[in-house]
Amino acid sequence: MKMQLDCIPCFIRQTLEVARFAAPDDIVAHRQLLDQICSLIPDLPSDISPPFVAERIHEIIRQRIGVDDPYREMKKQNLNLAQAQVCRMEQWMERQEDRFEAAVRLAIAGNIIDLGVNLDFDLEGELDGLCCHDDDLGDIALLREAVETADQVLYIGDNTAEAVFDIFLIRELLPRKVYFATRSRPILNDITVPDALKIGIDKYATVISSGSPIPGTDLERTTPHFRQLFDDSTLVIAKGQGNFESLSDVKRPVFFLFKVKCPVVSELSGRRLGSSQVYYSEMKTAERVNYE
Amino acid sequence: MKMQLDCIPCFIRQTLEVARFAAPDDIVAHRQLLDQICSLIPDLPSDISPPFVAERIHEIIRQRIGVDDPYREMKKQNLNLAQAQVCRMEQWMERQEDRFEAAVRLAIAGNIIDLGVNLDFDLEGELDGLCCHDDDLGDIALLREAVETADQVLYIGDNTAEAVFDIFLIRELLPRKVYFATRSRPILNDITVPDALKIGIDKYATVISSGSPIPGTDLERTTPHFRQLFDDSTLVIAKGQGNFESLSDVKRPVFFLFKVKCPVVSELSGRRLGSSQVYYSEMKTAERVNYE
Repeated sequence: MKMQLDCIPCFIRQTLEVARFAAPDDIVAHRQLLDQICSLIPDLPSDISPPFVAERIHEIIRQRIGVDDPYREMKKQNLNLAQAQVCRMEQWMERQEDRFEAAVRLAIAGNIIDLGVNLDFDLEGELDGLCCHDDDLGDIALLREAVETADQVLYIGDNTAEAVFDIFLIRELLPRKVYFATRSRPILNDITVPDALKIGIDKYATVISSGSPIPGTDLERTTPHFRQLFDDSTLVIAKGQGNFESLSDVKRPVFFLFKVKCPVVSELSGRRLGSSQVYYSEMKTAERVNYE
Repeated sequence: MKMQLDCIPCFIRQTLEVARFAAPDDIVAHRQLLDQICSLIPDLPSDISPPFVAERIHEIIRQRIGVDDPYREMKKQNLNLAQAQVCRMEQWMERQEDRFEAAVRLAIAGNIIDLGVNLDFDLEGELDGLCCHDDDLGDIALLREAVETADQVLYIGDNTAEAVFDIFLIRELLPRKVYFATRSRPILNDITVPDALKIGIDKYATVISSGSPIPGTDLERTTPHFRQLFDDSTLVIAKGQGNFESLSDVKRPVFFLFKVKCPVVSELSGRRLGSSQVYYSEMKTAERVNYE
């Protein structure tokens, strides 16, 4: 998905949020960073995908503020928030007749924890909503079918705390072989290999770094191992808008699971703003034939 | 009121909205305009007031697109919308015990018609709300008192269609002498002298141009006549956020009447986002003593 013009004011807003986050009291630095990012806008190619711009913004902020992982503390706090919900969600799962759909809903609900789009997310409210919502999840029937015939699944993670809820879905994928891919380094609150190991995903899946340093998946910079898994797995599940934005145009079928958090993604995906979605890149299935 | 850093992403968003409005199909021009405005951000002095930036943005768009008044048609449409409500609002006014407060509420409700902040305003919904709302209007008691002792009122208008509802309040100010001031030239959907005459404000007030070309009041560029009225009138009423942003720091008491439409104005005024407000710049009253 290419950047849209509406993304530009959003990049500037994100810059201000991240700058305030990295150096809360340094108003001079906030202005300097805004100026620097604004100056960079005219050089952005029109076909760049938003997570690539986010990477540039974060790199500039890292260098300016001199903090390598400004989100470390916030990630810990969010993880505590998420882990505090695990017990009740285990109980909720026990009551569900359709465990697969319930696990998909729960994994997508966790995607609300997104510091790039909105710092004021309401995880507890989102999880409360699971009990009464029966919104259309999009292509869940296709996903169920794909899971049934899959032997190997590549699951590309998104935010750190969200992965606590990804485990519920990964457990439903077993005994299939599951690989869980993370970012190559801290960016925003996205998950890395150490985060995934801390959460214990390795009990259910083989944890690998995708090699991608952007808050999404930059295929060009992924590792040969990831690339091989991406090409050869019968099923690829990718979480979050960042993965959707960076992978929606690739030549293989992917199931994207995400909360629709911005009007641009809503318009391009044709899915309602605020909704939980399973989005199957079916158009690419045809291309897949040529690609194989 | 000085620009805040949160205004910067909003300037960029406004640029895109105005560019799309001025040249709906010219996506290349939209991007060029965004780039140009982004390049201008680092040069903005930190003490500039937002309406001054809006003026620069609009001037650049005017030059690029070659349209002097891109809002002419939209102003006409909004005016039709507003005038279609006059009859029912006359009837509503007849039923009100406190005609003065009702007129103040109505004049502020009209301020919802603001293309700078939100193109999707709901005028009819706002007017419907007048019937059941009794929200705190802020400094209305002080305004009532000021009106009682005033002999000459300077009323600084804001948007064009909004002025249809300003007439209701101006009628309550009679038989005091009322001057109604407009912008010096078309900017956004703001009112000009020809607009005011078309609406018939001259039946109740002397219509003058303030001389200010910004979507607010730039005192430095106002006419000597406006300046004299601004200094000598016993009461100054200024409509809308643009006037609040540009006049809230001047050294004379002013009653600002506006809908609080953005978080920055909400924070600086201490008034709730979305609320209708009479805001008296009382701090300046003390300064007024020195000034006189």
